[in-house]
Amino acid sequence: MRPRATREQLEYVIGLLHENGLTSVSSTMADIVMLITEESVTPDIAATIEKAPGVDRVVVVPGTQRLTSRIFRPEDTRVQVGPAGGPVIGGPEFVVIAGPCAVESAPQMNSVADVVVASGAVVLRGGAFKPRTSPYSFQGLGLAGLTLLAEQRRRTGLPVVTEVVTADDVKCVAEESDMLQIGTRNMQNFDLLRAAGESGRPVLLKRGMSSTIEEWLLAAEYVMHVGNSSVVLCERGIRSYDRSTRFTLDLGAVAEAKRLTHLPVLVDPSHSTGRPHLVGPMSLAAASCGADGLLIDVHTDARNALCDGNQALSGEQFSTLMERLRPVVEAVGRTLARPRSQSLAQV
Amino acid sequence: MRPRATREQLEYVIGLLHENGLTSVSSTMADIVMLITEESVTPDIAATIEKAPGVDRVVVVPGTQRLTSRIFRPEDTRVQVGPAGGPVIGGPEFVVIAGPCAVESAPQMNSVADVVVASGAVVLRGGAFKPRTSPYSFQGLGLAGLTLLAEQRRRTGLPVVTEVVTADDVKCVAEESDMLQIGTRNMQNFDLLRAAGESGRPVLLKRGMSSTIEEWLLAAEYVMHVGNSSVVLCERGIRSYDRSTRFTLDLGAVAEAKRLTHLPVLVDPSHSTGRPHLVGPMSLAAASCGADGLLIDVHTDARNALCDGNQALSGEQFSTLMERLRPVVEAVGRTLARPRSQSLAQV
Amino acid sequence: MRPRATREQLEYVIGLLHENGLTSVSSTMADIVMLITEESVTPDIAATIEKAPGVDRVVVVPGTQRLTSRIFRPEDTRVQVGPAGGPVIGGPEFVVIAGPCAVESAPQMNSVADVVVASGAVVLRGGAFKPRTSPYSFQGLGLAGLTLLAEQRRRTGLPVVTEVVTADDVKCVAEESDMLQIGTRNMQNFDLLRAAGESGRPVLLKRGMSSTIEEWLLAAEYVMHVGNSSVVLCERGIRSYDRSTRFTLDLGAVAEAKRLTHLPVLVDPSHSTGRPHLVGPMSLAAASCGADGLLIDVHTDARNALCDGNQALSGEQFSTLMERLRPVVEAVGRTLARPRSQSLAQV
Amino acid sequence: MRPRATREQLEYVIGLLHENGLTSVSSTMADIVMLITEESVTPDIAATIEKAPGVDRVVVVPGTQRLTSRIFRPEDTRVQVGPAGGPVIGGPEFVVIAGPCAVESAPQMNSVADVVVASGAVVLRGGAFKPRTSPYSFQGLGLAGLTLLAEQRRRTGLPVVTEVVTADDVKCVAEESDMLQIGTRNMQNFDLLRAAGESGRPVLLKRGMSSTIEEWLLAAEYVMHVGNSSVVLCERGIRSYDRSTRFTLDLGAVAEAKRLTHLPVLVDPSHSTGRPHLVGPMSLAAASCGADGLLIDVHTDARNALCDGNQALSGEQFSTLMERLRPVVEAVGRTLARPRSQSLAQV
Repeated sequence: MRPRATREQLEYVIGLLHENGLTSVSSTMADIVMLITEESVTPDIAATIEKAPGVDRVVVVPGTQRLTSRIFRPEDTRVQVGPAGGPVIGGPEFVVIAGPCAVESAPQMNSVADVVVASGAVVLRGGAFKPRTSPYSFQGLGLAGLTLLAEQRRRTGLPVVTEVVTADDVKCVAEESDMLQIGTRNMQNFDLLRAAGESGRPVLLKRGMSSTIEEWLLAAEYVMHVGNSSVVLCERGIRSYDRSTRFTLDLGAVAEAKRLTHLPVLVDPSHSTGRPHLVGPMSLAAASCGADGLLIDVHTDARNALCDGNQALSGEQFSTLMERLRPVVEAVGRTLARPRSQSLAQV
Repeated sequence: MRPRATREQLEYVIGLLHENGLTSVSSTMADIVMLITEESVTPDIAATIEKAPGVDRVVVVPGTQRLTSRIFRPEDTRVQVGPAGGPVIGGPEFVVIAGPCAVESAPQMNSVADVVVASGAVVLRGGAFKPRTSPYSFQGLGLAGLTLLAEQRRRTGLPVVTEVVTADDVKCVAEESDMLQIGTRNMQNFDLLRAAGESGRPVLLKRGMSSTIEEWLLAAEYVMHVGNSSVVLCERGIRSYDRSTRFTLDLGAVAEAKRLTHLPVLVDPSHSTGRPHLVGPMSLAAASCGADGLLIDVHTDARNALCDGNQALSGEQFSTLMERLRPVVEAVGRTLARPRSQSLAQV
Repeated sequence: MRPRATREQLEYVIGLLHENGLTSVSSTMADIVMLITEESVTPDIAATIEKAPGVDRVVVVPGTQRLTSRIFRPEDTRVQVGPAGGPVIGGPEFVVIAGPCAVESAPQMNSVADVVVASGAVVLRGGAFKPRTSPYSFQGLGLAGLTLLAEQRRRTGLPVVTEVVTADDVKCVAEESDMLQIGTRNMQNFDLLRAAGESGRPVLLKRGMSSTIEEWLLAAEYVMHVGNSSVVLCERGIRSYDRSTRFTLDLGAVAEAKRLTHLPVLVDPSHSTGRPHLVGPMSLAAASCGADGLLIDVHTDARNALCDGNQALSGEQFSTLMERLRPVVEAVGRTLARPRSQSLAQV
Repeated sequence: MRPRATREQLEYVIGLLHENGLTSVSSTMADIVMLITEESVTPDIAATIEKAPGVDRVVVVPGTQRLTSRIFRPEDTRVQVGPAGGPVIGGPEFVVIAGPCAVESAPQMNSVADVVVASGAVVLRGGAFKPRTSPYSFQGLGLAGLTLLAEQRRRTGLPVVTEVVTADDVKCVAEESDMLQIGTRNMQNFDLLRAAGESGRPVLLKRGMSSTIEEWLLAAEYVMHVGNSSVVLCERGIRSYDRSTRFTLDLGAVAEAKRLTHLPVLVDPSHSTGRPHLVGPMSLAAASCGADGLLIDVHTDARNALCDGNQALSGEQFSTLMERLRPVVEAVGRTLARPRSQSLAQV
């Protein structure tokens, strides 16, 4: 539909679709209402609809992707994280998100937040609900962790992203954070994808550790299908036969995803490699192959971390990385996103 | 604890554990109450507890597995599906579960159920809630499908198994079926594992398509950890570089799992190979390498199936398979489970 | 060509092909000379050739496979190993090949050969040239090992199979053994494939550890392309993300290969699983899914073996396996091949 | 040994080793003779040897790697390709090697060589012997191709690298080229590795498509073990379950290999991705994660290429890539190697 199409025009088109035996859902992307129909549309029907008042154009997308496809939307989608004026993922700025794998305590969060803000991260991460392979591992602080994270949001002025593991938690996680993370094990938890989509919050969708690019985009399609177009993809390593690195970071998939979809793509060099000394090289590689930002584990006391401490960067390592990152980001024609003026870094 | 330990004896031991700084959960397996504590138990404490009245023995299990380990429980676990007298998985009988991938309609279910009962399947399968890669694919009939499946349970006398995809659905699925299936995409949906465990129903736990054996057993550990020891594992093919077959059926993992755990293990030759002509050979291979049974897709009109029709056996193919299966099952010293007398087959 | 086609008829057809701009190679399979041409043959030319005297039929094979395809040759190929009267792979008998991974010494070979013959193996295996990942590992005895193997051939009356790793060695290995093994690392060593093919000896072609079924069959095509149709395929496990077992034995590929090609297919349960306790279950599974035989590591002093000792069966384990194997082989309508009367077992 | 150790001193040390029951091989690296012994050396013997005249130090390397290990040689190895003054791989300059996948004809080679020289490639590549999956595919021009490549060496002044597929060809390939390439299918063709090593030419060792990093380094160990320390590693993509890209380019392995070994590491973005539009992003990523250079397929008439044309860059695409590469290379503190003054580019 055209940007200023009226409610009546929209309903007229829905009626037209129904008359022709087509069902439809509507989705809003950058103020433009879109009507998506899943059945095959004949050229005749397409022509009829295209002539209706308020209709901009009819796009028929081949293949399995629809809303996520570059054919449907050629321009890059930009996702605003937190209030206006805050970081935008998918635009000219390269966005670094950092923080601990798990929220553990107020002192830990203070310490890590200070460090990542000082080095230039623009979004804070931290897990309150941790999906763990074993029931005997630390499962996260849950709601208490969420509260600790929200405190950092207030204290630092940085928007926060945190993982949600079940549809029932979406509401409270959406209230206390700026972006909902769907983890690799939940990439095909379709119920959770729909609930996260319906929350209206931006969704950070990690690639399943054995998902194809097509499956990853179709998972994003579930979120967009309920009307939420603020989806940020995140490559975090796939399983291959070689366990020399924890997972195999698939940067070819990042470049290919950028070609297939208009959605922004981040890279997580921490979980993918599982080794601090590889986080630096892989961050630079991600920045130069077209990724829109990074998601990095930082811990100021990695040895005593309750989760994945052996892959976290120290504050000093993170600071060094940020310095090395800047010239590479600029060499590919982008700039490193800076924290907003009211954030802790400027205090 | 010993089989006839009293409630007082149990509470005395829990008190002993607490005095020593240990927390505990209790689990019931074949009428024997077990107390599981997650912290390291010193030999001193173990000796004290072992002397308490009603205590049978203290087992310290090395490695990541606990409740699922053969060290914890050396004998094979037998899982009763449906009312007493019905099929038992993990005992001397080899159990064949069959039915359509998705429940589609009453006539379809009548037709398929007649065919699989006639050929000797002892449990009926059928999906009402289907987790699908694309939001535009058929998602299952939901509650209506559950009702159609329950009708077949009454009509045929066969117990039924069906997939549950979200914790919120566990209660209603548990009411209408005899065993809850956790699909490959949900093997690490820990919230769902706990909810399924708490339902008290037997749980059929499919292996994640890129899960290691250890991760699979730890997922079963989540179900057992909430007190449900009726877990049946199911190998359904893993992802490898070779897509000549849909997935790579990993029968070595079946033999290895049987060694590591006391839980029964089934094989799904339909989803793993994705091709009807491979279902027969892989069924025979599964029967001879130690699997406790099979989960097979059967459809009487595969061409028009709404889900995975291209891998389903026809009624005739299924009947042929059952005939070829019997001598192989007997060659390894087991017998093929038969439907109970009151089932449709004997009418 | 027809079975009794004359040399003149053959040359006439070659002439016909050349006149039409086609080149050709000839291959002999079970006394029937075949002319293979690689270019597209038009229906006109095919019709002309089909009418020529001595021509049986013109077969145009779609896809990448030609000589190995079931379309080209629908009947199972049977490969005679050693002199007439000896074992035939691909016929009604299930053939067990056994022996040590590496030939180490005369006493070792005497001991192992006695054990495998006593339990019913019909071909003896043993490596003289060992391709090893590290230059610092035992590389095999080379020619001396070949001599020790040939001594067992005389002593036991059993045909022998041994690996050849370079084209230059083909001649001497072909003289001292009855079948040439091409190992997994050399499956695409095309120079070696051609040389092995030209030797005229049967070729045992192991699947590359990361080869697709198509690549495996095309490697066999290289051997057949130089005129040698005595090719026996051998599945030996592929690389997957799960290293719980050394490799992932891909029995689905065995069943699929049997459908695509007329060549016999063996299974190596020793290298694939890397664990003695899995060799038994996987041997039974292989026998029941359509494999034509097994290749098993046996060592009478596995603890001191110079190569892969940790996966070898002891003599007793091998004997137990053979007893368990017989009923499974018979359950699928085959018989276990027995050693010929003049072999050691009958002395 | 010390740089000016005499032949007598060397022989004295060899004698010492033998007296202590140790065998040895000698290898020359940057004018320093090294004696390598494979057995465990006791601290006593090490102390005795360290005191002998001419001995610099005794290094005992843990793990499976020896000559390739950073522990054995902490500094980066630099490999000179072609005559002195020509490109050096592993030093401060980032080296781009380009050319067609297969040498096809004199006009093709003239055309491609002109294009790659003009854009700044400093080594020319081109295959004369092509290992192909199918015997019916174009197998390369063989010796004729080698001659065409040598002509370009003379004409352009650029050193050339070409693949060698069998030990028998090493001598003639070494005469006509400046660096011998070992392809992915031959990474564990140990006979070929030894022969290439003995030629004295630098060896470009591609990673096996399903090799671990350890196996790759041990293959390099075979080359170094015969006394040739001019080994250049090349990551070219591994097999994973996802075939969206032809192979999965494993840049984490590049960074990890650079940490484990002193040998230079190149990246082949053409064979790994199999798609021209991914070659650019992956080249930039390689440059920024620590690779020492690139190996790129370029063809001026890709549509009619006889081998892998669908992944080759056109001359224009290659030129654009080189322009985008320079700032990234400089952002990580290196410079792009330039062609020598006498090459065609300056004519």
